Amino acid sequence: MITGNLFADVADQLPDEQIMELLSAPNVRIERIISTGHATAPNEWYDQDWAEWVLLLAGSAGLIFEGETEPLPLEPGSYVHIAAHVRHRVAWTDMSVPTIWLAIHYQ
Amino acid sequence: MITGNLFADVADQLPDEQIMELLSAPNVRIERIISTGHATAPNEWYDQDWAEWVLLLAGSAGLIFEGETEPLPLEPGSYVHIAAHVRHRVAWTDMSVPTIWLAIHYQ
Repeated sequence: MITGNLFADVADQLPDEQIMELLSAPNVRIERIISTGHATAPNEWYDQDWAEWVLLLAGSAGLIFEGETEPLPLEPGSYVHIAAHVRHRVAWTDMSVPTIWLAIHYQ
Repeated sequence: MITGNLFADVADQLPDEQIMELLSAPNVRIERIISTGHATAPNEWYDQDWAEWVLLLAGSAGLIFEGETEPLPLEPGSYVHIAAHVRHRVAWTDMSVPTIWLAIHYQ
């Protein structure tokens, strides 16, 4: 039995986004991601082979999908399903508090 | 793109545990579960064909595994991995506030 707390050991400032793998199985990967103001580099897109179900647990963020003009604002509790190969980027994350994400990648 | 908020529409009191399916795919199923003081019936056990990664988001609970004497206490942010066919039960959930779980079942 593996147990822990998602809100433990959250740094206030990080040089880069921090990804902690919580589960890795043949069809599923679960990660905790901490962002402290990080965003995807301009003109870069995530284009993923697996689908993703992502939940924002703390902080706030804006997620933009290719072809959209405005980012989707995310607050604690917000979840989004992103199908495989749907291009998206993180437009912004909270500058004042850490943003905690739970990402479930699956095939 | 499917989006929503896990903390929306949470009833204070429910006659039974409420399960909302958030994602259903061939290898993964994601559910939000709301408990308002509910527990697994005495001497009943969950014995699941799929593994489960479960996260407590609000409230509190005690999870007991077969052969253990004390429940594992869960608070917001607590997560537990439960392998397939590991028998377990919910010993108790918070009586004062709703307990919100995110359950990821996978194979």
